[in-house]
Amino acid sequence: MKKILIMSTGGTFNKIYDPIKGEFIIDVESQALNEIAKKWLCEFEIMNLIGKDSLDMTNHDRLELLATINQSEYHHILIVHGTDTMDVTAEYLADADIEKCIVLTGAMVPYSVDPVEATANLCSAYGYLNALNKEGVFIAMNGMMGTYDQIKKDRFKGKFTTL
Amino acid sequence: MKKILIMSTGGTFNKIYDPIKGEFIIDVESQALNEIAKKWLCEFEIMNLIGKDSLDMTNHDRLELLATINQSEYHHILIVHGTDTMDVTAEYLADADIEKCIVLTGAMVPYSVDPVEATANLCSAYGYLNALNKEGVFIAMNGMMGTYDQIKKDRFKGKFTTL
Amino acid sequence: MKKILIMSTGGTFNKIYDPIKGEFIIDVESQALNEIAKKWLCEFEIMNLIGKDSLDMTNHDRLELLATINQSEYHHILIVHGTDTMDVTAEYLADADIEKCIVLTGAMVPYSVDPVEATANLCSAYGYLNALNKEGVFIAMNGMMGTYDQIKKDRFKGKFTTL
Amino acid sequence: MKKILIMSTGGTFNKIYDPIKGEFIIDVESQALNEIAKKWLCEFEIMNLIGKDSLDMTNHDRLELLATINQSEYHHILIVHGTDTMDVTAEYLADADIEKCIVLTGAMVPYSVDPVEATANLCSAYGYLNALNKEGVFIAMNGMMGTYDQIKKDRFKGKFTTL
Repeated sequence: MKKILIMSTGGTFNKIYDPIKGEFIIDVESQALNEIAKKWLCEFEIMNLIGKDSLDMTNHDRLELLATINQSEYHHILIVHGTDTMDVTAEYLADADIEKCIVLTGAMVPYSVDPVEATANLCSAYGYLNALNKEGVFIAMNGMMGTYDQIKKDRFKGKFTTL
Repeated sequence: MKKILIMSTGGTFNKIYDPIKGEFIIDVESQALNEIAKKWLCEFEIMNLIGKDSLDMTNHDRLELLATINQSEYHHILIVHGTDTMDVTAEYLADADIEKCIVLTGAMVPYSVDPVEATANLCSAYGYLNALNKEGVFIAMNGMMGTYDQIKKDRFKGKFTTL
Repeated sequence: MKKILIMSTGGTFNKIYDPIKGEFIIDVESQALNEIAKKWLCEFEIMNLIGKDSLDMTNHDRLELLATINQSEYHHILIVHGTDTMDVTAEYLADADIEKCIVLTGAMVPYSVDPVEATANLCSAYGYLNALNKEGVFIAMNGMMGTYDQIKKDRFKGKFTTL
Repeated sequence: MKKILIMSTGGTFNKIYDPIKGEFIIDVESQALNEIAKKWLCEFEIMNLIGKDSLDMTNHDRLELLATINQSEYHHILIVHGTDTMDVTAEYLADADIEKCIVLTGAMVPYSVDPVEATANLCSAYGYLNALNKEGVFIAMNGMMGTYDQIKKDRFKGKFTTL
């Protein structure tokens, strides 16, 4: 088993409904990840950072993410990220030529609305990362897994597909 | 992306509550798998066979499973299996020296009672199988993945662990 | 058993997540009500109208609601309404001195996010209406039931309470 | 608002899945009721007793239930009961001519498997009890409410109906 660090940056995956405001907010503490670990009967190493909808993510945020990855002792890193700019962040990290194995995932539907897709994305990424024997930046979403340039969000179909 | 066949043999994963009988029964049509595929926004190739609680699985059933695997055109096969004799079936398949890549998974809690653990097991197995580059028989359960002889059910803790 | 008509006007009760837009929208067809009826193993008489968040509800909408109530053959009417202006609509209907028995309900959390509170509100209103032997306008929310002027939304606590 | 006591006697309503045993057991602490109260944003007065599947309920248990009702300071009592002998217990209590208002409810599907029917039954009973202005023994199940001799379990349809 590889030692995997999950970096949670926010995104739809972590949206929760705020009954007082009557709207969705990002859960910056990623309770969804803790709940998955508890129900999956295992333990995750989780680091929360940035805590944003991916449309609000800036290059400053991406620099912070890159620096955190570089400083981390972990070689295998799973990043929970918003879907709208997952490709931008993936390319940003790939351009930095990090000598690590990085898989990005996220969700089209918040875990709190329906846990299945978010859990499926996260855990497929987790399994994929466990068996991957190469460095690089990968995406695992909606049953599709591959290098970051092979998997794209199809905004009309509302899911990720292979090119 | 590898072409994966999911063989669903029953097990706790597929248990559903029958309100008329007031008890759990095995859903031999594996609606849980169809529901995961639909919510995960992807498609599975599914074959239902045996349809039993794993405590009721016989060597005759295992022979049927082995023959079905051998006859299948698929090289990558994910088997949904009951947890109590997953190790017996895994060893049985391993002894047959099939030149395929096989991952067994299942659930401690039926998908219909709480979908998270079942989804997490299945999709981690799916991701693991996608990146595996060797033949053999593997188990993916509760965040643990490895060859079938490395992952065991701990009956006291009620989950699978590594040896 | 009384013959009850459910008028569904939208509100948080009927919000569903739209993965393409990445936000909540009002389900104007009130699938939540159909799902509750199916799971409750009974049938509802449902009429959909207005289909709005209650903050967007105008006096024109209230006039439409009042006219629809007056024209209906039903004497017992359950109204699913947004929580923010439930009191305004209730008072509007009470001022019209309708000789019917009307109970308003809704939800702080969308049925699609978590079905329990929405189901509890609706079904407590349904039970209350079945036993009420007087005309008037009532509210049933968060376990509180009474005439419309006794039950108010507490915006700080995020729930309805008695005065 | 009336002061209501909920007496929880077990039944399908309170069944939970035990992953170690691989079967359903009765949750004698009725966590389902606490969870409904929490999500409904209100408080219940709950008393747990007997804790059985209704097929296992004896006349000794019914005597205990009757004595507990008689000794209780509450006039309005909601009883959560298994569905198979709900009619037997209801008739037993009715024969005792208690001068209280009693509503029995339960569930065809455990709250832990799908919360909607159990919540709907409980909360419709709660609303019904709040508006009832007479003494007697009543049943509220599957959208049907009335005196205990009007509502029966239809074992073929798997739900309660009116005679």
